[in-house]
Amino acid sequence: MPKHLPADSVGIVEQHSLHFDEPLPLDCGRSLPAYELVYETYGELNADRSNAILICHALSGSHHAAGYHSEEDRKPGWWDACVGPGKPIDTNRFFVVCCNNLGGCHGSTGPSSINPETHRPYGPDFPLVTVRDWVNSQARLSDALGIERWAAVVGGSLGGMQAIQWAMDYPDRLGHVVAIAAAPRLSAQNIGFNEVARQAILTDPEFHGGRYYEHNTVPRRGLALARMLGHITYLSDDAMRDKFGRDLRADGGRYKFNFDVEFEVESYLRYQGRSFVDRFDANTYLLMTKVLDYFDPAAEYGHDLSAALAHVRARFLLMSFSSDWRFPPERSREIVRALEDNQKQLSYLEVETTQGHDAFLMPIPVYTEAFRAYMQGIAREVGA
Amino acid sequence: MPKHLPADSVGIVEQHSLHFDEPLPLDCGRSLPAYELVYETYGELNADRSNAILICHALSGSHHAAGYHSEEDRKPGWWDACVGPGKPIDTNRFFVVCCNNLGGCHGSTGPSSINPETHRPYGPDFPLVTVRDWVNSQARLSDALGIERWAAVVGGSLGGMQAIQWAMDYPDRLGHVVAIAAAPRLSAQNIGFNEVARQAILTDPEFHGGRYYEHNTVPRRGLALARMLGHITYLSDDAMRDKFGRDLRADGGRYKFNFDVEFEVESYLRYQGRSFVDRFDANTYLLMTKVLDYFDPAAEYGHDLSAALAHVRARFLLMSFSSDWRFPPERSREIVRALEDNQKQLSYLEVETTQGHDAFLMPIPVYTEAFRAYMQGIAREVGA
Repeated sequence: MPKHLPADSVGIVEQHSLHFDEPLPLDCGRSLPAYELVYETYGELNADRSNAILICHALSGSHHAAGYHSEEDRKPGWWDACVGPGKPIDTNRFFVVCCNNLGGCHGSTGPSSINPETHRPYGPDFPLVTVRDWVNSQARLSDALGIERWAAVVGGSLGGMQAIQWAMDYPDRLGHVVAIAAAPRLSAQNIGFNEVARQAILTDPEFHGGRYYEHNTVPRRGLALARMLGHITYLSDDAMRDKFGRDLRADGGRYKFNFDVEFEVESYLRYQGRSFVDRFDANTYLLMTKVLDYFDPAAEYGHDLSAALAHVRARFLLMSFSSDWRFPPERSREIVRALEDNQKQLSYLEVETTQGHDAFLMPIPVYTEAFRAYMQGIAREVGA
Repeated sequence: MPKHLPADSVGIVEQHSLHFDEPLPLDCGRSLPAYELVYETYGELNADRSNAILICHALSGSHHAAGYHSEEDRKPGWWDACVGPGKPIDTNRFFVVCCNNLGGCHGSTGPSSINPETHRPYGPDFPLVTVRDWVNSQARLSDALGIERWAAVVGGSLGGMQAIQWAMDYPDRLGHVVAIAAAPRLSAQNIGFNEVARQAILTDPEFHGGRYYEHNTVPRRGLALARMLGHITYLSDDAMRDKFGRDLRADGGRYKFNFDVEFEVESYLRYQGRSFVDRFDANTYLLMTKVLDYFDPAAEYGHDLSAALAHVRARFLLMSFSSDWRFPPERSREIVRALEDNQKQLSYLEVETTQGHDAFLMPIPVYTEAFRAYMQGIAREVGA
């Protein structure tokens, strides 16, 4: 962490935890008898409890969206670019909540948690949850926090999908959806990349059918490969060109003629893979990719997204990024069209940027200014 | 194979082999003391030896470009769509040669060949060759076959890169370059995908430092992952949507909530991975990806592609495919511009198709008609 906290940081934050004893029925047909949700909050809930914002995290995210856990913390939370005093999600005006999703590996109940029935880690016995299951668990968290209605539910990528599901399943419990770089469902290509990532993990000899915890090991190789591959899809071809080009790590611009790391981009990807293994759980990664693959709210409505969104009451802000080839603008426009079919109120912004899918995490002025303006409108609306 | 050979097939073909004893100096500084090249030929060389076409293969290709090896052969050679009587590369008019490249695994000397110095397979001791090394070995093959000058050197993808290198290194030994879905060098994203594929193989416990032959095993998991990933990049998002959509394999459209194969696209990719392992060598795959990464003919000319192509004498046909995101049209246009800078004679066609990079292997009418017309012009020129 910087010696002095940046003025626009939420500062030192701590995580909270809530235990839930009422069984949670799941889409898969099973139910989770009891579970823990960890979360962080930033800002103050106002007297009429009208200024609460729920942030939903994406594949590798967590409840730690902003600020620092300690003076020694080197990096702030994953969405610090957008959450803090004076930032788009302005913690001077909003009470912000972000929880680690069920199945996660940052404190909420997930595959690495102890299964109370067996007294050993769930591993492969942890149920594959869905975006709808998450939203239900988040609704219970809302109840526990005394938040009847969210001013907005906000997220990027898989987080945006949760925000959309919120509007479908709890139409009266949120005022706005902010869904950034999202999609109404994955394409075959998206599923294909997820499947390669899963196969990397599932076929790693250290995976042990998902019971690697009990073998005192982790499927490092598989998880690192999955992350390397993911990273390529988060960046655009242009962003990679700008960042790495064909630069060689060694001086002199001479090839090594072996398989050692050679190009800057190789070095970057290998590092990303290696470091991810130290902070993420392989079973959670598998689960998250399935949550993505399964998300398809239109399916129950005869694959008619307009029908699926007919009953939402929230107003929408949708944003996409020109160079995002994981969930390109066209995918956001599908949501726009479905909302327009229903004459719902919405704003849509397509941001011109070379940063690819990861742009939603970055302080890109056109994006953050539009985001800020929209959130300020919400703040005025709720008197925050 | 069909019971009766298609009328436009070159029919049953057999492979030939040539042994070379003169050491081949390589870009890496080492040299290959002796080597074998296997090749196939289709059609007849005319009296003045002017109608010879060299086909260069891509990453997973071989010398078997067209026809069938036996009555039992289920599939023809890899470019049967474009090579045969009356096809774009018309074997009624041309004498066509295609060789397996050095480092390959289809008969030419490569990592799985016996190293005469050690009497065991080369494995990791096989030198990392380059496109230039390949072209030099192909020039020796030309000498051995008595072909002083190729009417054209032709290839798609990595094959197109070899055709371009031919024009640079042997400007008087070819009349035309046909380079399809090629690029003047790989992008950082291209290298990134190759690196993930390599890491999948290199970190497979069955890789044994490349000496898996001696352990009676193969790095199946790694090679299958590499191939699955490759396949996604050969197809366009649209092509995958048309081919698989989000179709589920099981009836009823219900999710399984486990990691069994579920979507059609998963089934397809797993099959592609599995079957590739039975017909391809992992060390060759590693080598081929490095050949791709290293190809950068402009590098020696101050990264000025126009300077690199200043001395070519061949005329060029370049073709690209609108949905190819591996080597998109923009990459072919870089070559077009460099040739135009030098006032070289060229034709360029951008084919509108959803088929992605693999389009160069397919019988897409706009593409094959243009290809045929250009080749007929060459035939007339050489009196074939």
